[in-house]
Amino acid sequence: MSATVTAAMVVIGDEILSGRTKDRNIGHLAEVMTAIGIDLKEVRVVADDRDDIAAAVNAVRARYTYVFTTGGIGPTHDDITADSIAHAFGVPCEYDAKAYAMLEAHYAQRGLEFTEARKRMARMPAGAEHIDNPVSMAPGFRIGNVHVMAGVPAIFQAMLDNVVPTLKTGAKLLSDMVHCPYGEGTIGDALTQIQKNHPDTIIGSYPKYMDGSFWTELVVRSRDPEKLAAAKADIVAMIAALDAAKP
Amino acid sequence: MSATVTAAMVVIGDEILSGRTKDRNIGHLAEVMTAIGIDLKEVRVVADDRDDIAAAVNAVRARYTYVFTTGGIGPTHDDITADSIAHAFGVPCEYDAKAYAMLEAHYAQRGLEFTEARKRMARMPAGAEHIDNPVSMAPGFRIGNVHVMAGVPAIFQAMLDNVVPTLKTGAKLLSDMVHCPYGEGTIGDALTQIQKNHPDTIIGSYPKYMDGSFWTELVVRSRDPEKLAAAKADIVAMIAALDAAKP
Repeated sequence: MSATVTAAMVVIGDEILSGRTKDRNIGHLAEVMTAIGIDLKEVRVVADDRDDIAAAVNAVRARYTYVFTTGGIGPTHDDITADSIAHAFGVPCEYDAKAYAMLEAHYAQRGLEFTEARKRMARMPAGAEHIDNPVSMAPGFRIGNVHVMAGVPAIFQAMLDNVVPTLKTGAKLLSDMVHCPYGEGTIGDALTQIQKNHPDTIIGSYPKYMDGSFWTELVVRSRDPEKLAAAKADIVAMIAALDAAKP
Repeated sequence: MSATVTAAMVVIGDEILSGRTKDRNIGHLAEVMTAIGIDLKEVRVVADDRDDIAAAVNAVRARYTYVFTTGGIGPTHDDITADSIAHAFGVPCEYDAKAYAMLEAHYAQRGLEFTEARKRMARMPAGAEHIDNPVSMAPGFRIGNVHVMAGVPAIFQAMLDNVVPTLKTGAKLLSDMVHCPYGEGTIGDALTQIQKNHPDTIIGSYPKYMDGSFWTELVVRSRDPEKLAAAKADIVAMIAALDAAKP
């Protein structure tokens, strides 16, 4: 098995914590990480507060291979992510010459004033590298193992597409799902035994409830396709035995 | 202004971090907290891992007035929240006599076996108090300032409805939204000045993007309705000035 590659995400924004905006980036990053064999281990949602952002980023960048942030890199006063990341790394936050020139040209071409607000989007921690933004030009950036991206989902997704090819990836965690028409109370004992019998798999049980009835989605994960198939076969047999026992 | 009441949330579950299940509880808790005047300050999503869960819960319970967890209290082997919370508090995790009797009667009434798996749902940290579950009976629990609830959204929401009346609440943070047809680059400088002129408000700027055009939702928050109205008036005037300046 190749070494495990891990990641954490820091979602930055008062609007998520107030409930005004529903985050759509956690699920997207989680799916992309799973698809390329990186284990997303932790997500933190923090407010637009420099110390909170820096503390969260410092906690996770020390612990995981990669960190991905979303939010707070726009032109307004509440966009403080660049400053907060610079603070976390103990480096100055400055106008990046390349980003400044690029944005200046971008707005000139459109006949728009290059306002102080727009200039803010050229600020980055010293030593950061750009993450291209094909949607609206203003770049994200990478410093150390931290990738700083936009919160607007369309822009976040486009930036992430540019980041993915630069990441080292692990052995992909394979996964297979079995629909189980029984609730967790019915299958729990048998499932515990199946998990014990298949220690190199991770068996997840996800209870579903609608209109008074329960069912379960059982997901088997493993980096080894044969071990995954063996555990899945035992789960299918468990469900068949329950079906056969029905009156 | 009454004292600020704060909260954090810990979302527990591999299925969220793998992207299989999209969380729907963060947004709901955020809305409810905002509605009752509690500031949700931080959310963490952690894996089904005892030490990760305990570390996250211990970090936030020391810092905020209330903690709310979702997930991992069902009957299967991967439901380890009760044990992890007991570990966090340094107390044993035991069968709760009241929960055990209640669940035993519940399953007897339905002619269902009270399996080892179902008995797991009666386990709680010593000293915990029930949070009633009107949907599927198995209770959540409160220990100290930590409220442990189900991950299935319908059950989480029902449990939270039972918790809300027990919480002390702060002065409600009022909020008002102004639709702004201009992007952040256009309004950023003026908005920075408005924020400076209204220090007792929090002005959030949320960029929106679709089909090549940008607009912004501007949200003013304050615990004082007059200060909120004054800041909002300046924002409306800013937009009117931009409209008037259009060719």
